[in-house]
Amino acid sequence: MSKLLKLRETLANNKPSYPMNYSIPSMFNLFGHNAISVLSNGEHLVNPYDFLIDLIDQVLLKNYESAPTGSLSTIKGVKVSKSNKKMGGDWILKSTVYSMMIRTSTTWDHDRNGYIDENNIYHIKETGTFLKTLALLPLLDKMGVDSIYLLPISKFSLKNKKGELGSPYGVSNFFELDPSLSDPMVENNLSVDEQFQALVEAAHTLGMRVMIDIIPRTNATENDLIIDHPDWFYWIKSSDLSLYKPPYVDEIAERTVSPTSKFMPTVYKSPSVLNHIQMFQFDPQTQDSTKWSKLKKEYARKGGSILELVDKYYGLTIAPAFSDHINDIQPPWTDVTFFRMYMDHPIETSKYLKDKNTAPYILFDTIKSNLYPGHKPNVELWDTLSNIIPHYQKTYGIDGARIDMGHALPKELVNQIITTARAIDPDFAFIAEELNPDNAKHARKLGYNMIIGNGFSMEPHIWEGKLHHFYYKSVELDCAVFACGETHDTPRLAARDGGQNLSKFLTVMNMFMPNGVPFINSGQEVYEKQPMNTGIDPRPNELYMLEPNDPFYGKLALFDKFAIHYLNHMHNDISDNLAKIKPIRKKYLNVITDKNNYIPVHFLDGYNPVGFAYEAKNEILLIVGNANPFDAQHAKVDLSAIRKRFNIQQNEARLLYAMHESGPRMFYEFDENKNPYFFLGAGEVKILVFNK
Amino acid sequence: MSKLLKLRETLANNKPSYPMNYSIPSMFNLFGHNAISVLSNGEHLVNPYDFLIDLIDQVLLKNYESAPTGSLSTIKGVKVSKSNKKMGGDWILKSTVYSMMIRTSTTWDHDRNGYIDENNIYHIKETGTFLKTLALLPLLDKMGVDSIYLLPISKFSLKNKKGELGSPYGVSNFFELDPSLSDPMVENNLSVDEQFQALVEAAHTLGMRVMIDIIPRTNATENDLIIDHPDWFYWIKSSDLSLYKPPYVDEIAERTVSPTSKFMPTVYKSPSVLNHIQMFQFDPQTQDSTKWSKLKKEYARKGGSILELVDKYYGLTIAPAFSDHINDIQPPWTDVTFFRMYMDHPIETSKYLKDKNTAPYILFDTIKSNLYPGHKPNVELWDTLSNIIPHYQKTYGIDGARIDMGHALPKELVNQIITTARAIDPDFAFIAEELNPDNAKHARKLGYNMIIGNGFSMEPHIWEGKLHHFYYKSVELDCAVFACGETHDTPRLAARDGGQNLSKFLTVMNMFMPNGVPFINSGQEVYEKQPMNTGIDPRPNELYMLEPNDPFYGKLALFDKFAIHYLNHMHNDISDNLAKIKPIRKKYLNVITDKNNYIPVHFLDGYNPVGFAYEAKNEILLIVGNANPFDAQHAKVDLSAIRKRFNIQQNEARLLYAMHESGPRMFYEFDENKNPYFFLGAGEVKILVFNK
Repeated sequence: MSKLLKLRETLANNKPSYPMNYSIPSMFNLFGHNAISVLSNGEHLVNPYDFLIDLIDQVLLKNYESAPTGSLSTIKGVKVSKSNKKMGGDWILKSTVYSMMIRTSTTWDHDRNGYIDENNIYHIKETGTFLKTLALLPLLDKMGVDSIYLLPISKFSLKNKKGELGSPYGVSNFFELDPSLSDPMVENNLSVDEQFQALVEAAHTLGMRVMIDIIPRTNATENDLIIDHPDWFYWIKSSDLSLYKPPYVDEIAERTVSPTSKFMPTVYKSPSVLNHIQMFQFDPQTQDSTKWSKLKKEYARKGGSILELVDKYYGLTIAPAFSDHINDIQPPWTDVTFFRMYMDHPIETSKYLKDKNTAPYILFDTIKSNLYPGHKPNVELWDTLSNIIPHYQKTYGIDGARIDMGHALPKELVNQIITTARAIDPDFAFIAEELNPDNAKHARKLGYNMIIGNGFSMEPHIWEGKLHHFYYKSVELDCAVFACGETHDTPRLAARDGGQNLSKFLTVMNMFMPNGVPFINSGQEVYEKQPMNTGIDPRPNELYMLEPNDPFYGKLALFDKFAIHYLNHMHNDISDNLAKIKPIRKKYLNVITDKNNYIPVHFLDGYNPVGFAYEAKNEILLIVGNANPFDAQHAKVDLSAIRKRFNIQQNEARLLYAMHESGPRMFYEFDENKNPYFFLGAGEVKILVFNK
Repeated sequence: MSKLLKLRETLANNKPSYPMNYSIPSMFNLFGHNAISVLSNGEHLVNPYDFLIDLIDQVLLKNYESAPTGSLSTIKGVKVSKSNKKMGGDWILKSTVYSMMIRTSTTWDHDRNGYIDENNIYHIKETGTFLKTLALLPLLDKMGVDSIYLLPISKFSLKNKKGELGSPYGVSNFFELDPSLSDPMVENNLSVDEQFQALVEAAHTLGMRVMIDIIPRTNATENDLIIDHPDWFYWIKSSDLSLYKPPYVDEIAERTVSPTSKFMPTVYKSPSVLNHIQMFQFDPQTQDSTKWSKLKKEYARKGGSILELVDKYYGLTIAPAFSDHINDIQPPWTDVTFFRMYMDHPIETSKYLKDKNTAPYILFDTIKSNLYPGHKPNVELWDTLSNIIPHYQKTYGIDGARIDMGHALPKELVNQIITTARAIDPDFAFIAEELNPDNAKHARKLGYNMIIGNGFSMEPHIWEGKLHHFYYKSVELDCAVFACGETHDTPRLAARDGGQNLSKFLTVMNMFMPNGVPFINSGQEVYEKQPMNTGIDPRPNELYMLEPNDPFYGKLALFDKFAIHYLNHMHNDISDNLAKIKPIRKKYLNVITDKNNYIPVHFLDGYNPVGFAYEAKNEILLIVGNANPFDAQHAKVDLSAIRKRFNIQQNEARLLYAMHESGPRMFYEFDENKNPYFFLGAGEVKILVFNK
C-alpha cells in the first residue's frame, strides 16, 4: 500500500478536534491551505493535521490515486527529464539540487514558547521530521528544484554527542533510520521507515528525486557492528584514550599535506608516530574469545553501551578517527572511527614496521586505503558497505547518493558499491565527495556521475576573480560540478561581504552555469546567515553570524537545535526569482546542459560583469549578471562575434527575465559596432534571447 | 450567593480538557500556581481555568468559606486599618492606592499571535476583564496596595469612538457596566454585573478596597438618557456640527484662563461668542412634542442610534463639550457633552443676553456651573446623578469614588452626591478631582476625604526643586494629596529624564511622604514608558515612547488596545522593593499618617538628597533618599537637633531597608557633631530607626 495514503489516513484518524495554537512559517504553506489566521509576524496558524491532509490532497496526490513506489527512474508514467544515457544516473546533470537536513529544515517553534521542543504541549516534535518535510516540497517545486539531497538520515550515536542533539555523521547503524526523524503525529501507526517511504513517494509524485548521503569510511565509535565484528575496528586501551591524538610529525615541515609515498619513511621514523602505533591493541575477541562470548551474552541480555562493556571486560576502547592529512591542525574526531578496510597492514608501508605483529593501527596511510591497500580486503565489511545503498533503494526507492570520503576508499570498494546499486537501478546517480576539480576525470571513470567540486570556495570570492574563473573554466572539466556558493560545511553567502545581493545573484546565475549542476543549500533561499557547520573556511567569528538575542545565536544545525529563519522572506526574494527562472531553465534545459551549445560571453566595458550564452535551435540565449553586489553598472557585451556568426539583429532581442522589478527593462544604447550596454542593478541578472 | 464561589464553579464547569497554548506574564502568577511550563521570555504557560480556580482556592478564599459582600467597612471580621474617624471615608488617608483600567491592566496576547484578540482561538478575550483582574490581586497585595482605584467601568459610547476601542470617559449609561469588560470564559453563567461583584468580593477578602471613577459633569453625545430627558442636554442643528467649536475670544489676550466674573462682559460682547450662542436650539421635545412621541415609538421598536433618529426627525444633534477655560487651545471633546445643571440661564451672566428666550447653550459660565448657578436646579438630573454611587454601592459593594470634574459641579449637587452615598456607607471615601493644592481646604469642607493634588507635575521635576517643594510643603495642606509621580493622564516616570531609577526612587519615597497617600499608576511597577493618555503635560513626542517595532508603538491605553510591558520586570525591581517596604509601612502606618509626628529632615551636605523623619513611640523613623537618579552620593543629615530633642545615640540606629542590595549597609562616618554621612546609590532610598 502507498505509504502516503496510509499517512493521510493516519493523520485523519489522529486529528484532534480541539483548537490548536500551532503555527508554521508562511513558506511552508505555498499551496494555499486556508490558514485559521495569519500572525502579525506572518506565520500561519494551522491545524497541522488538516494542513498536511490538505497538502496531500491538493498537491501530492493531485494527479494520482495512489503514490508511485520505487525510484523515480523505475516508475512508469512519471515524466522526468531524460538523461543523455552516457552513464546511468546522468539525470543528475540536468537537475536542480536542494541540499537539506531533515532534522533542521523543518524545525520550527510551532507553539511559540521560545524553545524547540522535542515534545511540545501537543506532543508534537518541533525539530524536523520526514513527515513535516512534506510541507517543504511546494517551496522546492516553486524554485524548480527536482532533486533533494539529504544529509545523513541513518541512526547516529548519542555517545559523547556534539552540541544539543549530536551529529548525524556519527552513524551507529547504517540500516536503521534515526528515530529522531520520526514524527509523533503519526508514529502510532507508521514506523519511521514508512514515514520516509511516504516522503520519497511524495517527492516522486512531484517529479523530484531523492538522494542520500552515505558514510562508508567511518562509523560512530559506539556502533552496532562492534558486537559481531570487533576485528573491523581499531582498538586502544581505555586508559590511553585521553592521550590519544593524531601524531604530529615534527620531521616534516609542511602542514596539512597529503600522505604521499615520499613522506612515509619520515613518518615511520618519527618518535611520535612510533609512540602512536604502540598504543594500538588487538581487538578484544582476538585477545580472548571466551571472554568475548560472555560479553556478547551480557549484551544480549542487558543491552546498553557496547563500549562500556568492552571497557569493563577488557579495558579496551575504539580508537577515534582523525584527518588523513599529515600535520593537520584539526583535533581528533572523537565521535567516529575508521573501518579496517584491509585485514593486514598496507603493502607499501608495512616494510617500515619493526614488529610485523603490530596490532592494526590508524595512521595517514591506513586511512587513505585507496593509496595504501593491503593484501587482504575486508571482504565481509565491503559486502556490508555495498549493501547499504541497496537497502535504501529497495526499502524507500531512493534515486541517488553521495559517498562521503569516497576518496579514502579502495577503488575496488567504490566500484563494488556503484555496481551493486546500478544492478538494482541502472539509472542510480552517484556524487563523489571530490572537491578538487583536477580529479573530475578520475571520478567519472570510477562511475560517479559528477563531483562536488569547489564552487563553494570559488564563487563567493568575486573580487579575487575566483567566480569568473570557476564559471568560465569549469566547462573544460570532464564531469559536472555543483554550481553553488555555499554548502552545509561552509559560511553562508548571505553572511559574506555582499550579503543578500551576493546570495541572490549567485543563486540565479548558478541556474545557467555551463557544466554546473545548480545546488541550493537549505536556508540559502531566505538568506540564512548562520552556517550549519564551521567545517570549511570558517572565519574567526563564523559561529556568531546572528544577533546575540537571536534564539539560535552560536548554534550549528549539524549539532544543535536550529530553525532556519524562514520569516526573512521578502517580496521578490530568491524563491520568487527562481520561480521566474524555472520555465526559462525548463525550456532551454537540454541546450544549457550540453557543453557544445555554450558560447563564451565577452564584455567590452563594465566592472566585474559575468555572462553565459547558449546556442538553441533558432535562438541565442544570453544571461548577463552584475557580480558587484554593491553598485549598479552599465556593462557592454561584445556581441559582434556572435552577431557575425548568427547574423543577429539587436532589435530581435527579447527580455525573458530581469531580477529587479523597476529599472530599464532592456539595454538602451549601442556602440558603433552595435554592441549593447546593459544596465544592471547591484547583483542583478538579466536574461535575453536573440533570434538567429 | 457569593459571586466568587459562583465564578469558581463556572470556571470548573467550563474548563476544557484539551491542552491550551495560553500564556500569562509571570507577574500574574505570584502565588505560585504550577505552570505547565515557562516560556523562554519568562511567560507562564497555564490553563487559564485551572489557573483562576487555583488563585481562588489558594489566595482569595484561603481564609473564607464564602467571600464577604458589601463594602469593606460594612463587613464584619475583615481586618482593615481603622480611620481616624474625623470624617467618614478617612481610611483612604492610610491606604496605598493602585490606579488601573480594567480593560488595559490585564490585556495580554495570551495566544501570542501578535495581536490583542477580542475573541482568540480559544474564544477568550485578550483585552482586560473583571475576571482576569483577579490575577493582578496577588501582585497588588505583594506591593502593599490596599485600595484599587478603577478608571471608568460604565458603559461607554462607541459613536465616533477614539482609537481602536473608544474612551471609557464617554459614558453612555451610568447604571450599566461596559460589556467589553465581561469575560467569555464565564459569561454563559455570570452576567458582567456578577463578574464585577466577584472582583470586589475578591479584593475585599484580601483587605483591599475598590473605588470607582464617576463622571457626573459629562455624558457621551450618544447616551441612554436622551430619550427620556432631551431637555437635560444642549442642542444645535446637525448641519452646524462641522462649524461648532469653542469660541475664541480675541478681545481677551490671555490663553487658557478661568472664566472669572471680570471676563464675562467681554466674553458676551465678542462676536465669536454671540455667533456661537446663536447656534444653539431648544431641545427637540420642546420644539415638537408630538414628533418626539413618534420618535420614541420608533426608537422603542427599532433601537439603533438615538442621535441618528433625532437628526432624521429634527435635524438636531447634541452639542459637544469643550474646555471650561477661556481661549484654551484644546479642540472640542467631540465624544462627550455637558449636562444642563440648571434649567435656566446663569443668574450672573444672563443679564448680558439680549434675547432672554435664547436656547440653552454651552459656554465657559454654563460649564462652570459651580461659579455660575441658575435659579432652577435640574432636580431630576441631580437625583439621577446622586443615585449613581448608591447603585454601585448596593450592587457591587464599592468603597469609594473619585468625582470627575467635580470642581465644575454646583456645590449643592456635590453635597447631595456625598450625603446620599454616606447615608448608605458612612465610611465611603471621596476623592476630589482637584489638582490645585490651594483648594485642599475647600474640598475637605465639601466632604471630600482628599484631593488628587499636583504631585504628578511636581515630583518628576527634581532639578527645578519641585519634588522638594511638593514633599516638604504638602504637609501644610488641609487635606491629603496623592503622593504620585504619574497618572493615567501624564507622561510615565520611566519615560522621563532619570528613567527607571527615577521611577523606583519616587515610588518608594512616596510611601512615606507626609500628608500624602501613595498612588501607583498601573504599569509604573514595570517601568511602562508609554503613557495611557497624553492629556497632561505631554512632550512633543509623548505618543512615541516605545521602540517603533513595539506592537504598541503610538498606542494609548485610554483609546487603544494596549498591554502593559509586564515582561520588563527584573530582579530587585519596584514590586520587590515595595514588598520590603510593606511591613515597615504597616508597622509605622499610624505614625506616618499623623502629621503631628512629622519631623523635617535637614541635610548639611549632599546634592539634592531628600528625607522624612517621624516620631514613633520609642523610636525615630528616618527615610533618606538620593533624588539624583544618575549618580551616587554621600549625604550628611543634620541629626543634632533631633538628637538633642530625643537624646539619640548614633550606635542605636538600625537599618530597616536599603534599596540597593550591594553597597554600604549603613552610614560609616560622622562629622564633629555626630551627624552621619549616608552613602546613597543613584536614586537609592534607605530607612533607619533610632531608639529614643
